[in-house]
Amino acid sequence: MTDAATNMRLKLPITCFILEIILIILFGTLVQYDHETDAKQWHNQSHEDYENDFYFRYPSFQDVHVMIFIGFGFLMTFLQRYGFSSVGFNFLIAAFALQWATLMQGFFHGLHGGKIHIGVESMINADFCTGSVLISFGAVLGKTSPVQLLVMAMFEVTLFAVNEFILLSILGTRDAGGSMTIHTFGAYFGLMVTRVLYRPNLDKSKHRNCSVYHSDLFAMIGTIYLWMFWPSFNSAITAHGDDQHRTAMNTYYSLAACTLSTYGMSALTAHDGKLDMVHIQNAALAGGVAVGTAGEMMLTPFGSMIVGFLAGVISVLGFKYLSPILEDKLKIQDTCGVHNLHGMPGVLGAIVGAVTAALASTDVYGGGLSDVFPDVASGDVTATKQGGIQAASLAVTLGIALLGGLIVGFILKLPIFGAPPDTICFEDSIYWEETSQKNEHYGSPK
Amino acid sequence: MTDAATNMRLKLPITCFILEIILIILFGTLVQYDHETDAKQWHNQSHEDYENDFYFRYPSFQDVHVMIFIGFGFLMTFLQRYGFSSVGFNFLIAAFALQWATLMQGFFHGLHGGKIHIGVESMINADFCTGSVLISFGAVLGKTSPVQLLVMAMFEVTLFAVNEFILLSILGTRDAGGSMTIHTFGAYFGLMVTRVLYRPNLDKSKHRNCSVYHSDLFAMIGTIYLWMFWPSFNSAITAHGDDQHRTAMNTYYSLAACTLSTYGMSALTAHDGKLDMVHIQNAALAGGVAVGTAGEMMLTPFGSMIVGFLAGVISVLGFKYLSPILEDKLKIQDTCGVHNLHGMPGVLGAIVGAVTAALASTDVYGGGLSDVFPDVASGDVTATKQGGIQAASLAVTLGIALLGGLIVGFILKLPIFGAPPDTICFEDSIYWEETSQKNEHYGSPK
Amino acid sequence: MTDAATNMRLKLPITCFILEIILIILFGTLVQYDHETDAKQWHNQSHEDYENDFYFRYPSFQDVHVMIFIGFGFLMTFLQRYGFSSVGFNFLIAAFALQWATLMQGFFHGLHGGKIHIGVESMINADFCTGSVLISFGAVLGKTSPVQLLVMAMFEVTLFAVNEFILLSILGTRDAGGSMTIHTFGAYFGLMVTRVLYRPNLDKSKHRNCSVYHSDLFAMIGTIYLWMFWPSFNSAITAHGDDQHRTAMNTYYSLAACTLSTYGMSALTAHDGKLDMVHIQNAALAGGVAVGTAGEMMLTPFGSMIVGFLAGVISVLGFKYLSPILEDKLKIQDTCGVHNLHGMPGVLGAIVGAVTAALASTDVYGGGLSDVFPDVASGDVTATKQGGIQAASLAVTLGIALLGGLIVGFILKLPIFGAPPDTICFEDSIYWEETSQKNEHYGSPK
Repeated sequence: MTDAATNMRLKLPITCFILEIILIILFGTLVQYDHETDAKQWHNQSHEDYENDFYFRYPSFQDVHVMIFIGFGFLMTFLQRYGFSSVGFNFLIAAFALQWATLMQGFFHGLHGGKIHIGVESMINADFCTGSVLISFGAVLGKTSPVQLLVMAMFEVTLFAVNEFILLSILGTRDAGGSMTIHTFGAYFGLMVTRVLYRPNLDKSKHRNCSVYHSDLFAMIGTIYLWMFWPSFNSAITAHGDDQHRTAMNTYYSLAACTLSTYGMSALTAHDGKLDMVHIQNAALAGGVAVGTAGEMMLTPFGSMIVGFLAGVISVLGFKYLSPILEDKLKIQDTCGVHNLHGMPGVLGAIVGAVTAALASTDVYGGGLSDVFPDVASGDVTATKQGGIQAASLAVTLGIALLGGLIVGFILKLPIFGAPPDTICFEDSIYWEETSQKNEHYGSPK
Repeated sequence: MTDAATNMRLKLPITCFILEIILIILFGTLVQYDHETDAKQWHNQSHEDYENDFYFRYPSFQDVHVMIFIGFGFLMTFLQRYGFSSVGFNFLIAAFALQWATLMQGFFHGLHGGKIHIGVESMINADFCTGSVLISFGAVLGKTSPVQLLVMAMFEVTLFAVNEFILLSILGTRDAGGSMTIHTFGAYFGLMVTRVLYRPNLDKSKHRNCSVYHSDLFAMIGTIYLWMFWPSFNSAITAHGDDQHRTAMNTYYSLAACTLSTYGMSALTAHDGKLDMVHIQNAALAGGVAVGTAGEMMLTPFGSMIVGFLAGVISVLGFKYLSPILEDKLKIQDTCGVHNLHGMPGVLGAIVGAVTAALASTDVYGGGLSDVFPDVASGDVTATKQGGIQAASLAVTLGIALLGGLIVGFILKLPIFGAPPDTICFEDSIYWEETSQKNEHYGSPK
Repeated sequence: MTDAATNMRLKLPITCFILEIILIILFGTLVQYDHETDAKQWHNQSHEDYENDFYFRYPSFQDVHVMIFIGFGFLMTFLQRYGFSSVGFNFLIAAFALQWATLMQGFFHGLHGGKIHIGVESMINADFCTGSVLISFGAVLGKTSPVQLLVMAMFEVTLFAVNEFILLSILGTRDAGGSMTIHTFGAYFGLMVTRVLYRPNLDKSKHRNCSVYHSDLFAMIGTIYLWMFWPSFNSAITAHGDDQHRTAMNTYYSLAACTLSTYGMSALTAHDGKLDMVHIQNAALAGGVAVGTAGEMMLTPFGSMIVGFLAGVISVLGFKYLSPILEDKLKIQDTCGVHNLHGMPGVLGAIVGAVTAALASTDVYGGGLSDVFPDVASGDVTATKQGGIQAASLAVTLGIALLGGLIVGFILKLPIFGAPPDTICFEDSIYWEETSQKNEHYGSPK
């Protein structure tokens, strides 16, 4: 099932080796331990070990890490014959993206004497940026070669860092859990890429673009891990203390409410009242996306539950009614339905964040205002203005994502990256050794 | 395979939406951030960020969360055609129960100016209560509709909170890991429910009530996660410092010893010496249940190992010899054998806790006595008396569980909840879209 | 498929019960809570709760625990008909080994008034030692009975503790992540055992010694968990503060680089450019092994990435070209290819550690030198000497592992342990009830 065009014998090694060698050279030139990871600097100062940021953030980091590699990886194994690629390409592009993100984010977040300083917070940020790439991967799943995906990741990480820099550093936007920077950006970037890569004859692979019983169970591993650890995701880089604590709790309740509305909507929209695994696997997570911005704010559990409930409703409706329209009318072939899980809930999250920010006051936040809205606390902007900034940030994000996706989509159309033909999409065997053909465990050809 | 009675088109959405709307209203009326999650209150006081309870308990919370959603969810996927329902209904009722538990436990644990204050400890307690509901789910697995399960969860959470209040707040019982409040309660409640729901013709679905090779592997994911994180479960709400540390360690050794006795007993009780997956999946966990009460006490690793060893022996014997008797003579159809994993080991744990408490002394606990036995340390009761209280608590728990299960069982018999017929138990397709029927990923009927 | 020789009806229970009873007696005689888990001792001293080692190490411990039970267990499920045994025997021997390791390591690490003191650090060390046994298990996977495995574990844990004692306590070697003590030791011990147990007619079971589609997906669960949590593994017992932080970060980047080189090499070495699941499942992890020694040192992310990159290259080449040679020429039947994942990368890690140690200076480490190289900081040895000690430790480890494996291999050849015949290797049904034969969930014979 392999012909010359899709043969990865040289394309993939060359891409991997060149990218990694560039990364190593740039790390050698530009990257240093920060003062919490450097032996000399940490011991130069006077502090207790438990004050090291490692203990505040590493457990959250590991939860985020699980979401990136197990969560996204297994969520996409729902396809019957694309499990190796789902987990395996997710693994590959995430391993690349987190290194590249360290450089891009480090560059934009501010150099220290010409050097990028790294520690657990930069690791979390790198994983976050990687998450955005994996969302886009969901849109093009099954229709792209690993080389295309690495190229996409390279450009997307760069544009992610630009957008993040504009929002967080220039505009002063708050977006701890990334409703805008991660989810909205990743989704609309990916949707535009898949639009440009539109395949009119994709129905030739239609019989493979569906799940089987066990593949849906594997996908549930991904879903449940994403669902469980989303509170850690949204709280991972918020301020220490009440902020991390509150963000995790808001997300917990948003997700719980979202799950109930998802089950309700899934049964309601089926003609025979049967639940659809696609909804459960995806829409039940929309509550985490939708409190990505406002989760660190004084949204209250009550508010979080309303947001989560709405996110579940919107997401199921999107899977049921909007996705077919997007495909038929707009020619957007969105394999995983990322528009429903990350796109619309991300926009909802941005709006909720803007409204919640506009309502912020010292009455409610007390001394904590400076953690959540430093610009408002310092008097640089009013709360209303902050709300406006948040709303404007959504527009900026959509603009960069769509424009970036357009350009990158055309780059990926170059016929040199080994994209699969229409007849063999959603199929592992085009890029993976078939296990049944091997005589022995270590795959020696003999 | 669906007829009008089991069609969830309206039943499930109505139940989900009404329950969630009630939850949202009650949260809006009653629930507030506690002083560790509220921005204003936390910043009003003088403390370091690392003193926030988040850092003491959030990693344990996430481990507990994994046990609830992955552990219980996948443990029950052993059935060949009930994987979607096992993971999916587990997900649904847990998402509901943790919200409802927040209210019920908050109400009974004490209001603050008419409000329920919540933070990471209440989140752990809500997950604990949810665990109890999932134990009962194991007893009725495959024979109940999602609506029945939500109704069961609503009542069970309420009764759980009542029992917990009587034990912890009125009697002064110690039960950090919930041998009584969680395991004994959940098991006997569920056993009584399944007794009331007895189906004389369940053998019509007999061919589905068994595992296949891959379903047993999926179940092992659940088993191993429960096993690994049980130390976090038992220590999640014990006092800070040595208490959390000691509880985790006692549980670790109890489980290790239990695993060896489980393997030994499984081979010994099989006529051909072959291991039975059912024993490994379940009995190896009994060691965690059995140190749920005494784990925080000075049980010593030695004592923990003896308890774990016995729990494994009892549990395998229960699966092998007692379950068939319970079904044939007492008409208790216990799908997952929760009596063997949670029932008997829970009772064992209560007894071990009572004995260990009765032996407590300042000699052994020193200044730590006030953490583990505050009433003994304050002189309100003697250690012997504390032991008696622990024993009495077991009786109270059994009474409330059995009586509650009886009543709730009869409520669930109402013919309006869409229970599956005898011929189609243990079958996903009655409540779930069959994946093979779909042409495209988003399940549009076309 | 069972005959008298492989029937475990008596062999396994006797082994399990005798071992566990010995463990319980020894724990009762020798083991005590340390001052951080003992209620009296902890409360006798003046300190804050957050200073308890539990909060510094328990999250890392749980990550390590997941690697041991899920990571190793599921990694080995790649075989089509050996999933129960892979996860199940992994579970059994790990549960035994961690108890036995507590005693052996406690004995060698120093008694306190004739007693072994235990807490979270000893739990991590016990899990580490267990990991070494599981590496050896990978070499003999499919060809050994559970009784053989328990006997192997008993001896291997003992020898592990001896080797660890010589390295860490006598020589003053640094090896926080165990490139030598865990990986090199476990791999070469296991390779020697499998050499002694050489089966010339193993090709009679050849058709079972391969994977199927779903078994490879289960194995990826193991791979990804090992990959994600390796930063926790390498940093779990390093000094508090910058050391844990730096070690985790170095490992993170080493693994990311290793993943890219693994994918590149896998495609490059396949005649049709297709990726081989065996490489992805294993070689992508070699980066964690290879920074096991140097991870805590000031290796820099740049250095870590170079090491990880090389480890991936070496490991894929090993699977592709060396394993067939080892089997054909040296008669080493290495089921999981542990030589490629743990053996060679472990040796690489030891060498990298020796070089990095030899280059250590106060200029680079400042006051942190005493954390990483206490003997150098105190002036007892020069950095160059420390490098020499590190290199000598590799030789010691190889010597003890090979000699130990030789002796233990011959012990395991005794015909009393129920090893499977050549025709039924790699087959669950020889030791496990077949699920399809059961009529009911609890396996009553009826």
